[in-house]
Formats: sequence, C-alpha cells, structure tokens
Amino acid sequence: MGNGSNSLGKNLVATIFGESHGKGIGIVLDGVPSDLNIDKKLINKDLNRRRPGQSKISTDRDEKDQFEILSGVQNGKTTGAPLTFFIKNKDHHSKDYSRFREVHRPSHIDYPALLRYGKNVDLRGSGIFSGRLTAPIVIAGAIGKMILRKKNVKIGAFVSQIGDIIDETQYHVDEILEKGESNIVRTVNPKIAEKMISLIEQVKEEEDSIGGIVSVRIENFPKGIGDPWFDSLESIISRAIFSIPGVRGIEFGTGFKAAEMRGSEHNDQFIYDKEKDEISTQSNHCGGIIGGISIGNSINFKVAVKPAASIGKSQKTLNFKKKEMVELKVGGRHDPCIVPRALVGIESITALVLADAFINKRNT
Amino acid sequence: MGNGSNSLGKNLVATIFGESHGKGIGIVLDGVPSDLNIDKKLINKDLNRRRPGQSKISTDRDEKDQFEILSGVQNGKTTGAPLTFFIKNKDHHSKDYSRFREVHRPSHIDYPALLRYGKNVDLRGSGIFSGRLTAPIVIAGAIGKMILRKKNVKIGAFVSQIGDIIDETQYHVDEILEKGESNIVRTVNPKIAEKMISLIEQVKEEEDSIGGIVSVRIENFPKGIGDPWFDSLESIISRAIFSIPGVRGIEFGTGFKAAEMRGSEHNDQFIYDKEKDEISTQSNHCGGIIGGISIGNSINFKVAVKPAASIGKSQKTLNFKKKEMVELKVGGRHDPCIVPRALVGIESITALVLADAFINKRNT
Amino acid sequence: MGNGSNSLGKNLVATIFGESHGKGIGIVLDGVPSDLNIDKKLINKDLNRRRPGQSKISTDRDEKDQFEILSGVQNGKTTGAPLTFFIKNKDHHSKDYSRFREVHRPSHIDYPALLRYGKNVDLRGSGIFSGRLTAPIVIAGAIGKMILRKKNVKIGAFVSQIGDIIDETQYHVDEILEKGESNIVRTVNPKIAEKMISLIEQVKEEEDSIGGIVSVRIENFPKGIGDPWFDSLESIISRAIFSIPGVRGIEFGTGFKAAEMRGSEHNDQFIYDKEKDEISTQSNHCGGIIGGISIGNSINFKVAVKPAASIGKSQKTLNFKKKEMVELKVGGRHDPCIVPRALVGIESITALVLADAFINKRNT
Amino acid sequence: MGNGSNSLGKNLVATIFGESHGKGIGIVLDGVPSDLNIDKKLINKDLNRRRPGQSKISTDRDEKDQFEILSGVQNGKTTGAPLTFFIKNKDHHSKDYSRFREVHRPSHIDYPALLRYGKNVDLRGSGIFSGRLTAPIVIAGAIGKMILRKKNVKIGAFVSQIGDIIDETQYHVDEILEKGESNIVRTVNPKIAEKMISLIEQVKEEEDSIGGIVSVRIENFPKGIGDPWFDSLESIISRAIFSIPGVRGIEFGTGFKAAEMRGSEHNDQFIYDKEKDEISTQSNHCGGIIGGISIGNSINFKVAVKPAASIGKSQKTLNFKKKEMVELKVGGRHDPCIVPRALVGIESITALVLADAFINKRNT
Repeated sequence: MGNGSNSLGKNLVATIFGESHGKGIGIVLDGVPSDLNIDKKLINKDLNRRRPGQSKISTDRDEKDQFEILSGVQNGKTTGAPLTFFIKNKDHHSKDYSRFREVHRPSHIDYPALLRYGKNVDLRGSGIFSGRLTAPIVIAGAIGKMILRKKNVKIGAFVSQIGDIIDETQYHVDEILEKGESNIVRTVNPKIAEKMISLIEQVKEEEDSIGGIVSVRIENFPKGIGDPWFDSLESIISRAIFSIPGVRGIEFGTGFKAAEMRGSEHNDQFIYDKEKDEISTQSNHCGGIIGGISIGNSINFKVAVKPAASIGKSQKTLNFKKKEMVELKVGGRHDPCIVPRALVGIESITALVLADAFINKRNT
Repeated sequence: MGNGSNSLGKNLVATIFGESHGKGIGIVLDGVPSDLNIDKKLINKDLNRRRPGQSKISTDRDEKDQFEILSGVQNGKTTGAPLTFFIKNKDHHSKDYSRFREVHRPSHIDYPALLRYGKNVDLRGSGIFSGRLTAPIVIAGAIGKMILRKKNVKIGAFVSQIGDIIDETQYHVDEILEKGESNIVRTVNPKIAEKMISLIEQVKEEEDSIGGIVSVRIENFPKGIGDPWFDSLESIISRAIFSIPGVRGIEFGTGFKAAEMRGSEHNDQFIYDKEKDEISTQSNHCGGIIGGISIGNSINFKVAVKPAASIGKSQKTLNFKKKEMVELKVGGRHDPCIVPRALVGIESITALVLADAFINKRNT
Repeated sequence: MGNGSNSLGKNLVATIFGESHGKGIGIVLDGVPSDLNIDKKLINKDLNRRRPGQSKISTDRDEKDQFEILSGVQNGKTTGAPLTFFIKNKDHHSKDYSRFREVHRPSHIDYPALLRYGKNVDLRGSGIFSGRLTAPIVIAGAIGKMILRKKNVKIGAFVSQIGDIIDETQYHVDEILEKGESNIVRTVNPKIAEKMISLIEQVKEEEDSIGGIVSVRIENFPKGIGDPWFDSLESIISRAIFSIPGVRGIEFGTGFKAAEMRGSEHNDQFIYDKEKDEISTQSNHCGGIIGGISIGNSINFKVAVKPAASIGKSQKTLNFKKKEMVELKVGGRHDPCIVPRALVGIESITALVLADAFINKRNT
Repeated sequence: MGNGSNSLGKNLVATIFGESHGKGIGIVLDGVPSDLNIDKKLINKDLNRRRPGQSKISTDRDEKDQFEILSGVQNGKTTGAPLTFFIKNKDHHSKDYSRFREVHRPSHIDYPALLRYGKNVDLRGSGIFSGRLTAPIVIAGAIGKMILRKKNVKIGAFVSQIGDIIDETQYHVDEILEKGESNIVRTVNPKIAEKMISLIEQVKEEEDSIGGIVSVRIENFPKGIGDPWFDSLESIISRAIFSIPGVRGIEFGTGFKAAEMRGSEHNDQFIYDKEKDEISTQSNHCGGIIGGISIGNSINFKVAVKPAASIGKSQKTLNFKKKEMVELKVGGRHDPCIVPRALVGIESITALVLADAFINKRNT
C-alpha cells in the first residue's frame, strides 16, 4: 500500500531508486508470483539492448550494466518475497555539474529539477531523472515478459520513423522480433534501416540530435483484461510510457488518424472464420482495446520520441543568476538519436504493466 | 488507501460509481480542502456543456443532469469530509439490450464488457462504460477548477479538428475561454466552426459519425509541480485522459511532430524579459513540461477522439451464438460527433488531476 | 488507485461518506466479484442489530436504517461495477450544536474535529465522526460475509465483559452465533447477560456510561492467507477495528497474557488426528495467525471498547473562548453502553477486511 | 502508486526487502523531504540498540549491521529522490533448514510460510519473516525521528513488564529517554531492571523464552493530525506495530481497563492553566488521541510481545510428511527475551508512521 511517486502497478508493484552518478540504480518488485524461473539471459539481453555504446550511432559511453539480485530469489527462482535488483554505477569522475545550477541547459532537467527538489538536488548526470534509470525498468520488464510468456504473449517493438524516414508497414510481431535486432537502428526493413542510419550519422556530424517513432505490437494477450475508466489498458499503458524520458505522444490503433474517419470506416467488423472456428475482426482500428479492455486482437500503439535535449552544438541559453544570455557548448559524448534505445524502455515497461494487468484480472 | 479501479488521484481521490440506466451516477471526492466555496453555477454550466441535446449537431436525447450533494458540504462550503455528488437517472424505458448479448455491436463495449464482467454485466445504455459517467467527472473537474483558480490557473480547450477541417492556430487561453463557447462545435474561429458544423450535419444525414481533435491549453499552473517517472505530469494527465471514452491518442507540446525535428530546433531557448523581469522560453515545444515537471510555461496537449461507434447506418456484424453474419441497424438517436462533448470531459478531468498534483506538491 | 483516508482495502476497496445530520450516509465498494447474490435480509438483519432504539439498554433514538442500492446490482446480483449503498437521514431538527464550538464536551470529537477540519467542520451529531457511519460499514461487512460464506467462513462475536462482569469462556463459533442474539447485551451465557443488563440499567439511571470487551471468533477461514509485515492479518484487522468509534485496545489469541508466559507454554504444539486425517494444534495461543498468516485454526481476538463519552450526567469542562470552567449538562438521550452495538461494527469490518485478504490471496 | 504488501505509508512510503540469509536486507523510503540532514550517528545508535549480541540476556549472535546508502543522499543531505538503505548479510554457513520443511517448529513461521509462498519459500533464518528485517525499519524510523524532531517531537519507549514483573509507573518521556538505556532490559527503574534481568537469566538457563510489554510515550506531537475512520492514528499505528514480529496486542491510553470504567471517570476533563496560558486535560485516559486525531496530549500506548517461539528446550511437534509426532531440539543460540530488542522496532516504526501522518496533514 502506498503512494510513492516512484512506484508503478497495483498488485505487481515496481519501485525504482538511484541516481546516475550515485552508488547505483535499482528496483524493488513486489507481488511477483513465487516459483518463477529467473531468466538471467533475457535480462542481460535486454540490458545490453538498452545500454549506450552499442553502435556507431549511439553515444560511445560504455555503461555495461551488471545487475545483482539483492533479494527474492533462491535456487534461481522467485520466492514470492520482494525481488530487488541493483546495478552499481562505475566510478564517475563527474564533470563539473555545478555550472548547470546557474546556466540551465535548454529543454534539460536542470531547471525543473531545481524547481521540484530544491537546492540539494543531485544534478550529476541528471540524477534521478537520468535515462540510466530505464535500466532497472528494463529488468522489471524482463520479469514481466517471464510472467507473460507462460500465456505465449509476444511483445515486439520497432523504430518506424526517424526524422522524415518513415515505415508505415504493419508488421506481424514475429517479423518484428525476428528482424528488429538485425540492424543498429532497430527497424524491420533493412533498406529503411540504411537510410535511417545515414540520417543519424549526418545528425551526429552536426553535433545535433533527432527524434523518431516507436511502434509496439503485442500478440496473444488474453482477452477480457483491463477496466473501464481510470485503469483502462490505454490509461495504465500511457501512464507507464510517458515515464520513459523523451516520450511526447502516444496513440493506440489508428490513433490520431481516427480524427478524420467516419464511424462506419473506423468500426471493426466482427468476422468468423469457420475453418479455424475463430472469431476476430476484419480491421483493427481499435488497436486491440475497446472500452479499456483487451478483446483478443493484437494490441498496437505508437510512441513519439523527441530529439535528445543534450547536443554538442553550441546553443544560447540564460545564466539564471546573472540574467544574461550566454553561449553554451556542452562537451562530452551525446547520443544523436535516443530512439532505438528508448524503444527498449518502452517495450519493457509495457511488459511490466501488462503483467500487472494480467495478475489483477484474477481478482474478479 | 486502496486500489479501486474506479478511483483516480493521490491525495485528492475521486471514486466514480453508477450506470447509465440504473438509479443514477455519482462520485466521491476525498481530500478536498475544507472551507472551499462550492460554486454550483460553475458545476451546472459544465454539466450543461457536457450533456447531449444541446444543439442540432449532438443527439436529441435530453439528459438534463440535476446533481444532488450527498455529503461534505455545510453552509455552501466544503467541510473537509468526503464530498459526494449524485445524479439521478430519469426513468428509462430501456429498449431491449438483451439482443446485444448475442449480436455484439462493432467497436462497442458489448463484447469487452461481457468478457470482463461476465453474464450479469449491465449492458443497458452501456452500463458503467457509458459516456454518461463523464457527468460526475465533470462535477469533480469543476471542484478541481475551484481549487486551481485560487492560483489563477486557467484551463481552456477547443475543437481543433473535425474530419479534415483543421485549425492549427495556437490560441491564447483567454481567447479559447472567450470564444470557444460561442458556437456549438466549440472551436475558436467562427468560419472554421461553420465548416465543421456543416460537415457534422452531412455526417448526421448519412447516419454516420465523425472523429476529431481537442486542443487543451493551461495558463498559470505553478512551476515545479509533478515528478520524474511514473507520476510525471504527462503520466498522470494521459492516464486520466484515456479514461474518457473515445480517446485514441494524446501528444504534449509539439508531440508527434517532434519525431521529425532536430534537437537544436526542438530545444526551447530560455530568455529573459528585462522590463517584466521575467524568465520564459522563446518557443514552447515542450508543452510546459520538462522531466515530468511544470516549468511555468503554458501547458498544452492535443487529444484525438475517434468517431462514435454507435451509428444509425446499417452495419454487418456477427451473431456470436449462431456464428452467422447479420445485418445490424441500431435505432434511436446517435451523436454524429461526440468531440465537442468529449471536450468537456477532457477539460474537466485535466482540472481534477492538476488539482491533485498541486495538492501533492505541498508534501515536499 | 488512490489514497483517500476514507477508503479501506486493497482489491476490495470500501469508501465511506456522509454525516450524521446531513442528507445521509453511504459506502462505495469497488472490487466485489460479479454475479454475487445480494442477500438483503442479511443486510437488514445486521443493520437492525446495529441501530439504536432496539432495547431498553440502548438509547431510545429510533434510526431505522433503510438502505438504497445506488449502483452495481442487476437482477439482485452484483454486476462487477462499484456497488454503492446509501441511507437517507431522517429530517433532524438539529439541536443547537454551535455551543460545542466553544464549550467542547470532554473526550468528545468537538475539539479534535475543529483542530483537523477547521471552522466549517460539521459538528451536528458528530458529523463524519458519528457512530452512525458504522451503518454503511455494516452493509459492507454483510457483503464481505456473502463472499466468505462460499468458503463456509463463520464469524461470531459476543460481549465478554461489561464493567466488572466478565465471561472468559472460549465458546465455539456456532454457540456464539446461536445464543449471542438471544439477549439484548449480546453475550452467550444468559445468567451473565442478566448481570450485565442490570449493571447497564444502573449506569443508565446514573446518567453515566460503561465500557466493555467484545470477543471475536472466526472458523473455517482458509489457511495461507495474509502477509508478513505491513499487511499481516493482525495489521489489517487492527487497522480496521480501530476505525470503529470507542475502540481502545485489541489482542490476538492469548494477547496481553502472553507477556507473562514462557515460550514452552505459549507455543502451540502441532498434532495429528489420525481418524479425521487432520492436522491441528493442541492449544491456540496464536489466535489462528502466525507470521501474519492464517494457519487454519480458529482466529480469535478481543477488542476493548471505552464507555461512551456522551453522558447525561453533569460534567465540568472548559469554555475555550472565554477560558473559563463551566458546568455542562448535555440533554437528549445517551447510550449507557455502546458495547453491544459496537460489536456489530467490529464483526462487520472484520468480515470486510477478511474478504479483501481472501481476494488478494488469489494474486499469488 | 501501488499496493505492495511490503510497503507502508501514504506520502512517506517505506518498502522493505531482503531475507535473513540472502545477500542482505534493505528499505526504500519515498517521499522524504529534501534537504534533510542524515544523522548517521542516530541510525547507528538505533541499529546497535536493535541488534542481537549486545548483552548477556540477548542471543550471542553478533550481527553488527553496517548500512550503506544506495540512493537519495548528496553532501550528507537528502535530495528528495528515493532514499535507499542496504545492510549486507554476513556469509552464513546456513545450518540445514531443509528439515523444517517437514518438521515444522511449533508457533514458528515454517508452516505459514510454506502455505503462503509455496515450495520455493526461503526458510533460511526465517527468510523475509526474519526479525532481522526490523533493522531496515529501524533505519526508516530514524529518518522519521529526524523529520519529527524539527517539531521537537520526543518518542520514548521502555519495557514495563517481563513475565510477572511489572512497572506501571507513568514516566515522563524525558525520564524514559534518560534512563531507558541505562540497563540491558530497557526499563526505567533500576531495581525493577535487576529483577527482570534475573528472571530472564533464569529463563535462559531453562532454554526457554519469556514475553513482556513495551510502553510507548510521545510528547509534543502536533495536535490536529490524523483522521476519523480508517486512517485514525490508532489505525495507522496499530497496523504498523502488528508488523513487528511477536506483537500480540496493543492498547491506547487506559486501554483494556476502560472496559471497567464509567464514562464520568474515563472522560478527560479540559482544564486551563492561566499562568502558562495553556489548555490541557486533567487525566489522559484517551492516550492523546480522540476520534483518531491528536489533541496535543502525550500519546501513549502499550504493546504486548509474546515469548519467542524459538527455544532450545526440547519440544514435541509433528513431522508433516510422515504424520508422526517427533521430539524436536533446535540447536544454536536463542534469544530468551526479545522484548528489549522488539522495543526498538516498535519505537522506530512508530516514528515512521507519525512522520507520515505529519506530512499528510499538510494536505488539508
């Protein structure tokens, strides 16, 4: 029970903690069913997908994340007690972050962090705001996947847009899972991948950054899960997704395009396949969710990710103390496109909240 | 404390109850500060804006909502105890909903409701799923507005798109509040209003429905409110917004367009106005929120609303029992465009969660 | 989800509202399984047991509580949507409560209510603090009983002490259920009942009040339910019990007497009954709960209830404004012994939280 | 937000994790105000008071608890982000706990733990049920004390009973704080201490254990804090106290004795001290709380602690598999009296929930 703003979930509750340049980062998962095999390979695979320094288009920082299990596991399986993971930070020779207390970086968390937490806020590497805290979320998401795969639930995500390069194909989840990791930009079509990569390289050269879109698709999620109103599947998914740094929008199914459509077009006709003895719908404009509840269709949604605020390029900003405009050039390595890495956070937190929704269902 | 899926909020907690064709609908608000004047006029005004039958472009059903205060008020002011509102339903000569237990309407809640709640689910008028339950949310939102207006917070919303008619102007909140109610479609520009209305009339004639977009803008919301991660302002707003029936997408600030932008474009440069001795930003791509926290800019977001699933036009669907396709024509009055009415729910629930966030802030 | 201080429970969440002299009192129950028969007779029986004016030893006020179901029921069964009950208050010609804003009654809620809620607090009939709000709790408890009786769980409670008249017999739950209602003081042994009644009559004559103890015993509660730490069965039961007005203490099993015992005495030896092929324990000092979790023994605990603060007898108190001592004589009818009525609240809220614990269990 | 059964609190939320013989034990505290000095000395002092091996009357196990701060602190002060503490376990050459999966110790957690968590439950050293998890609670309580001492709140606790040796004196909190640590049994009167110690030594010799009572007294807690009903101060305190292993009862103020009293005796008369210009009450039967809310009096309550279930003495129990009675002698060191150590847990968790209640108050 409780109200912590760093907790997520109802019966499967995740609580994150840690800072970018502190001792480390971690997560407590309360409510994981007992006797679940901890698949460390899956955790490590997802952590590796998330971490920087994996490819020429991400930052060169190498943050290999080695997790420890602090509690909740015995003989490689969950005990039912809280499951706690911890990732030690490497020793950081923190650069001097004190200047950002005065000269706030544009669109960066310097300003809101100070407003919210006051003068002792930890700004080093963005403190608790750091994208680094998606690492424990990725671990929690892997646990979610372990719970869901017992029902054969599959969660795939791919980068469907970088800048003006767009892939609107509706891939099946198996194709996403098969091909999405074959290129560093995490898109399905290799030709589009090439174009995206060369755009990102160009952006990198300009010491700038670029945004994109992540498309998520889930198959085999059981039907009848979710709630009307405040715990609709869209509500709990969107709440979770907007906690991933850089996310600026989400749409389910046909999403914003539904604004242009007639009901007669947008309605998904029920159909019956006699041979398979299966009920489904002809189209899937609803994205698998009606009235907040899963109907057995594939669930799909798109997430807009902004270009990273941290760029090498020189920018104008304000010295808040002196109230003078200054030229700011932030050294160090910057990620020209966080989208392929944000994808892993998006996919993981989706697995986490869907596992919670699945567990909740058994209450009624 | 508790986990009810019909509750929303942390320290200002709303719990809705009721069904469309049952005794009535209501809401309990726990955590409203004591000694707050209950502005009944504001409540009635917003209820009237929400209810159907207000204009030629909405359904003719007349559901004048008269609310009763069941608890929490004395001498016209809150006592600090839970505030409960109730709206009695009129006697419904419910048409026969039993057929929808077998012949599910396309994209309607018949199917998910049965999956979720089982055979005794109340399907009459959509039961708990009914858009009618936005009426108590509108009341709660009015209470939220009463809390926020002490800080001069202004919340405006207008219809910025119906079908292919789009108004991308960034209006100031005062303009929205001034002109948004001057036409039945709730848009700011009267010429665009005319076009939208004539499109909706055409759709109505075709016994079809059409979608649209609602743009929300908030001014004077105090800075430093919100949290990183799961209670980011985007997280709590999106969770709330997706509980409004028909919502399919949300984007903050520049939203999905950020996918095409460079960081150097998207970053909002801080500037200083010497005369006013005021810090602000040149652009507002962030939509007033960075790192989940308000920075003092106007907060703005857009919400996509799908065309209503209920249409008069004949549709094909499945008889789930007999597993045969049937032709379905649903009589009665249908709303050709729910967008101007959904707007009131969107605006209200925004006020509610922002009031909660404002109250939470005082804890730190 | 939420944190309202007027809500109780995790997956079965009760939210109370209302005031003694306002429009009425009520409760929302969120999370009740669907398709549960609403046993109105049981609700009415328990409401009648709770209400005043039932006997010569309780106050003469007649508050026959007629409940309405505002939501969540169709064809006499739950739909799965929030279940809401409401009891209208009779028209009260409220006596003048304004004097208690200045001359606070000793040990009464006048003083704390003003401290907590401020000047617009509703003090009429004790407002939200009124014991009258146990009526909706009794309804919620009856729903809890309906959920639990599917597992044949039996909850009995009897008055084991009034003043210095004590019955320490460990009755079986069937005996409690059979005989506990046969006398107005709700004790099992008729001879002890007589003594208690005559003591209460004497106290009534003196315009005074008297305290007592309620003993609760539960059979057939499934084993393995509860949690270590903050949601131990003792934790959730005690939290609930202390919300019943007048409760001053609770002890489980051997309780305070355990302070005098050796481990070798207090430990409950496991035994095996070969004929019944049943495992049990020889003694039950643990009161059916070890480590916060039910072990299949009968659960038992005792609850101390103070003498009612409201007495007819003249008392000295302070005029808080004038800072002068005054003589206070509060007219009207007072309950000389609230214990037999508090028993119903205690029994009911126990049923409610045990039903919640039972529902929660299915999550793991 | 969430519902984890290992979390406690509303706006100041503690989440515990860890096992007795696993990697370690810890706690996440979410909602601690920023810029609070972390008084490590106080934490260490309280940890030392709690740990075993401090004196001849406690077990000889030496578990010096060295805590690490994993997150939330910078420059010795809180940042406002979650505060996480971790205590590594020493390498345990765990004795063979597997036999207890079959031969359950009487009144021990072997049986309920298996019922609740299933076959992979961690029983080593009692796993998550271990009293060792009070160590992180003690740390959290120390943080609570740091928050409360800004208001000069003082929390004292002493052992008022061991077996049949009882001290019913109502000591002032300063006396408790001054003298309570001067003897190993944590009582105030040195003569009574001697008697208690010699009783415990005798019990130790008999390889048995003995119970007792802890009396808690709080001064200067601000008035007007708490709620009626489910978050009454008694409700939140009792919920917390019953999470401390071994607790069997709690009573506030005059407690169970109130059952014997008349209202005219039990009511606390308000009085006015003209010289100090102070309002108070003549007696304090209410224990500082009326209607669930603090009234400014000293808050006091008593807690019954059972004799530890773990004893060296030979006991009969059942082999659950073979369904045969066996003689059980559990080797190792046992604590003959856990009361003086349980006291530290009781005192600490009280500080934690009162700090939460204090923070919540600022919402209204």
